[in-house]
Amino acid sequence: MERICGTSRIAGFRFSLYPMSDDFISVIKSALNQTDTSKVWAKTDHISTVLRGSADHVFDAAKAIYLYAANSDKHIVMNGTFSIGCPGDTQGDTYLSADEKRINEDAIRSLKAEAPCQFALYPMNEADYMGLIMEAVDIAKAEGTFVQGVHYASELDGDAHDVFRTLEAVFRMAEQQTNHVTMTVNLSANSPSRKKPKAGIK
Amino acid sequence: MERICGTSRIAGFRFSLYPMSDDFISVIKSALNQTDTSKVWAKTDHISTVLRGSADHVFDAAKAIYLYAANSDKHIVMNGTFSIGCPGDTQGDTYLSADEKRINEDAIRSLKAEAPCQFALYPMNEADYMGLIMEAVDIAKAEGTFVQGVHYASELDGDAHDVFRTLEAVFRMAEQQTNHVTMTVNLSANSPSRKKPKAGIK
Repeated sequence: MERICGTSRIAGFRFSLYPMSDDFISVIKSALNQTDTSKVWAKTDHISTVLRGSADHVFDAAKAIYLYAANSDKHIVMNGTFSIGCPGDTQGDTYLSADEKRINEDAIRSLKAEAPCQFALYPMNEADYMGLIMEAVDIAKAEGTFVQGVHYASELDGDAHDVFRTLEAVFRMAEQQTNHVTMTVNLSANSPSRKKPKAGIK
Repeated sequence: MERICGTSRIAGFRFSLYPMSDDFISVIKSALNQTDTSKVWAKTDHISTVLRGSADHVFDAAKAIYLYAANSDKHIVMNGTFSIGCPGDTQGDTYLSADEKRINEDAIRSLKAEAPCQFALYPMNEADYMGLIMEAVDIAKAEGTFVQGVHYASELDGDAHDVFRTLEAVFRMAEQQTNHVTMTVNLSANSPSRKKPKAGIK
């Protein structure tokens, strides 16, 4: 089977932002409006938002939206699925900017937020998919963000910049090794039921 | 490769309930408390809740929790992943009740809620996974709940009972044909950005 891999492909992230607040509309709109989405194709419908473009710019925009929402100080969640290489995907509805400079990074570098996360990696039509999932866990351990495996997911914790760097490294590792990869993420900030960070987690 | 399929296996659903309300804690707790979870193993952590047991009882509890939360009349979302047959799964943390009677169905049958939904089916290590996804779409069309494909997902709409019946039929179709299946669902009730239901959708 031909392998079509690499970061020149269209990546995407379909996600929802959930502010646990009566004021949820303004938190969502503010986070989306503060984020520069000029290097991705973005569309919001009544259930979710999709970002499409190069992996660089999709992860850049995703992290920016999360950080702006978390800095509302409301309990917010970003829950979604990263995807690359779906055989049914089209070339439409996307920008593949030749420019790799992450357009939000300068503005968000100094923003802080916690990012406890449960994620799951799904390499499709891949006999060794459990091997890739084990590699993902090893990446998270090396990044210092791994907490534990739970049923159907792996749990991360740490600063949002560290957690998003882990997620992007996992996604890139997998998409270099197999055609079609999806990865679900569930990131939570400012939850009142938040456990105290475990020792060793920044 | 040996195929290990069938509904005697442990199914699971890791999900989060997101009430877009200052009062989110009581909406979550109320929906969980109103649901009879005696036929599933259930555990809530600071990010999500996992239900484990037979597919019958996992879907019964999931639908009940959604209906109770939606009947708070707040904008609520249930977002999660159904799973069966993960090679790394254990026999622990589960109940496989011999009794197939759905313990919540009588209490929730008369409850109504809309359930616009985006879902994605991930049959793992399956060369024909796109074929199974096409079968899923055909099931939804036959159930009258299919709206459209969107990037990375399929969109359903209709009454919660119809949408959950569709999701369960899709999950069962796939898990009869391959070992390990996951399915993400994002169900939304009472959203202010909700479009008017399309013609033909109940």
